[in-house]
Amino acid sequence: MTPQRVELINTGSELLLGNVRDAHLEWFGKELIGIGLRISRQTTVPDGSDILSALREAFKRCDVILVTGGLGPTTDDITRELASESLCLPLIKDQEVLRRIQDYCHVRGISFQPRMERQAMVPSGARVLPNEFGTAPGLYVAPTVVTSLTIPHLFLLPGPPRELRPMATNYVIPILKGLAKSGAKDVCNIYRIVGMGESMLESKLGLELSKRTGLEVGYCARPNEVDLRLIGTPSLLDEIKPIVLQAVGDNLLSDAGESMEEVVVRLLQKYGETIATAESCTGGHIADLMTNVPGASSVFREGFVTYSNASKIRILEVPSAVITQHGAVSEEVVRAMAEGACRLSGADYSIATSGIAGPYGGSDEKPVGTVWIALCSAEERTETWKETFRGDRITFKQMVAQSALDRLRRLLIARPA
Amino acid sequence: MTPQRVELINTGSELLLGNVRDAHLEWFGKELIGIGLRISRQTTVPDGSDILSALREAFKRCDVILVTGGLGPTTDDITRELASESLCLPLIKDQEVLRRIQDYCHVRGISFQPRMERQAMVPSGARVLPNEFGTAPGLYVAPTVVTSLTIPHLFLLPGPPRELRPMATNYVIPILKGLAKSGAKDVCNIYRIVGMGESMLESKLGLELSKRTGLEVGYCARPNEVDLRLIGTPSLLDEIKPIVLQAVGDNLLSDAGESMEEVVVRLLQKYGETIATAESCTGGHIADLMTNVPGASSVFREGFVTYSNASKIRILEVPSAVITQHGAVSEEVVRAMAEGACRLSGADYSIATSGIAGPYGGSDEKPVGTVWIALCSAEERTETWKETFRGDRITFKQMVAQSALDRLRRLLIARPA
Repeated sequence: MTPQRVELINTGSELLLGNVRDAHLEWFGKELIGIGLRISRQTTVPDGSDILSALREAFKRCDVILVTGGLGPTTDDITRELASESLCLPLIKDQEVLRRIQDYCHVRGISFQPRMERQAMVPSGARVLPNEFGTAPGLYVAPTVVTSLTIPHLFLLPGPPRELRPMATNYVIPILKGLAKSGAKDVCNIYRIVGMGESMLESKLGLELSKRTGLEVGYCARPNEVDLRLIGTPSLLDEIKPIVLQAVGDNLLSDAGESMEEVVVRLLQKYGETIATAESCTGGHIADLMTNVPGASSVFREGFVTYSNASKIRILEVPSAVITQHGAVSEEVVRAMAEGACRLSGADYSIATSGIAGPYGGSDEKPVGTVWIALCSAEERTETWKETFRGDRITFKQMVAQSALDRLRRLLIARPA
Repeated sequence: MTPQRVELINTGSELLLGNVRDAHLEWFGKELIGIGLRISRQTTVPDGSDILSALREAFKRCDVILVTGGLGPTTDDITRELASESLCLPLIKDQEVLRRIQDYCHVRGISFQPRMERQAMVPSGARVLPNEFGTAPGLYVAPTVVTSLTIPHLFLLPGPPRELRPMATNYVIPILKGLAKSGAKDVCNIYRIVGMGESMLESKLGLELSKRTGLEVGYCARPNEVDLRLIGTPSLLDEIKPIVLQAVGDNLLSDAGESMEEVVVRLLQKYGETIATAESCTGGHIADLMTNVPGASSVFREGFVTYSNASKIRILEVPSAVITQHGAVSEEVVRAMAEGACRLSGADYSIATSGIAGPYGGSDEKPVGTVWIALCSAEERTETWKETFRGDRITFKQMVAQSALDRLRRLLIARPA
């Protein structure tokens, strides 16, 4: 039977104290939609008896439970013990698992600690899921009846992502795939849209989309971006695709989950062109984003972070009179920065930014959040524009980078093929 | 009465589909421990009627409920409606809120859409929490009795972090602080430690810490970093502090939650010194990190992202023979890059990186993950060192930046005062 409800339970006080940000929900969400399953609910509970109550509540609601964390060797790692208590299954020491833990330590030169023996305890009848990147094995308990309640498929998985992900890929996903009946499963299409608010998007598309039965529509707004999420059968989504593309036009950043920098790098690669950056207020963020993309070295020529006026003059050859006359945050200065970067690097395009990231340094005329951006093309006139982005420094840098890269993206997609 | 149980409910199908990673639990976890409160449980539910069941379950368990998301203008935003249903409170259009939304749109040149009117609907008797960065106001409903059940303090907050955080700081935290009775509350100290593994830390400190009653100890290991988390009364934590500091020595990055880049910028500010960066494989990431810190402009002189050999030669004056002879990823090249950056910028220090971020470009001799790093000081000999960091490009860049900045940090704290 295809599982109807899958739940994720994350255990760990560090998550609730804000010490660590959970990465499992995002990862499992993406993996499961790929095999036609979805997570119905996710819960985070601290190390302790709350794990037991969360498990017992989930037993009544769902078909599959994925539990993460609390399988380590220390005293606060008690997921294994509480799960076996809730299942009324005794823990039995598995000699094969113990040997594997000892081998793992030996190979890596870690001294085996007696407390690691706890990690070889396995609920009677559970299947052991090997851990290639740590000492704690995962555990899988097939449905079992406990006091007239059928317990769902239960997976206990280690907390560190680098241990959990290979284990889930190799063992958990195949088991779940085996449970899911073949047939027309729902898939998820995400259209990432820039330069069009979610209200505008819905007013353009909402009515058309609401006519389709079996279509689930969702919107997710981020600074300067909206994701339109459509879930339905592959044939329904294929039918709708041209309608969406028509409505969003060149505001479509990607329908394949690509980020702005991935799209820009791909377009530059397509045309065999290169870029340089001349950043003041973004402080290297645009260069950093672009060089996150594999293969960026073929398009990213060089970057300058010219925070001071002296750097703008010496490195980018901005005339000092231009700075004196107009101020560092001005149309004239970003234009000269961009043109200097293009000329000096020999790149086909350059992007320049100069603004006031805050929290200090604003004035009545140029408040915190003011930024001038320039896009220089070796072939065409330099474009310059001004924006005002409020928020903390990091958000400000992200929004400036997004604005600059989106202008280049629009320039590149508008080119004759 | 001090709230005993605070729960966070995140709404949004995008979270469960892995489209977006939740940032609210981390943020609220840190904020609440600062006022002596903790989050007991966090739940994520999709847009839809599951919000109602999650609310009703939480009503029975806790004193404060924080709900995020689902206050937007689109049809999938139904948290407001479901919450008022669960509270048996009618929604009433608030003309003042409506006017604020219209003003917000007007000031930003956004066209007001009729569907935005829904955001002016307020459950009868609820307090409106103004949103300075978006159209959806937050809502606060004080405890009320519904069919003989006392409903906890209920906060409905917008999903985007840049809207939620200022609202929570200005309104939610002060209300919660008012609820929390004064007196000796537990606080949380986090010691961020670099260059010392979790097991080493525990073997040095574990026994000493286990002697203290009323002390909660947690360890959280990340690549190259360990957080030691201590929770207890302020006087107990003060008493333990010198013991921890003695044990960790100069491996202590911060006991005030500072990041590596914040510590390095603060140290440079203290000595009135400056830095320049010359980055190849980190692609501007070090400059980006440093310029995230408010006030960085007083210490960050300039940065170069010299991805290509030609840039290294032209911009940083690396002799081309050195590149030909040793290869771009070599001790000699990072040394020349760092020394060039120091000399050209006039900065007191410079950091240079050259490595193979992958996924392509490795060889048997220099596999993917190999990196040479240099730290140049205008006063002392240039230090160079080699590391091998496995992982994706972003993780690789983070680890290289951490290694480079930590070397500078140790140099700065070792200086005679």
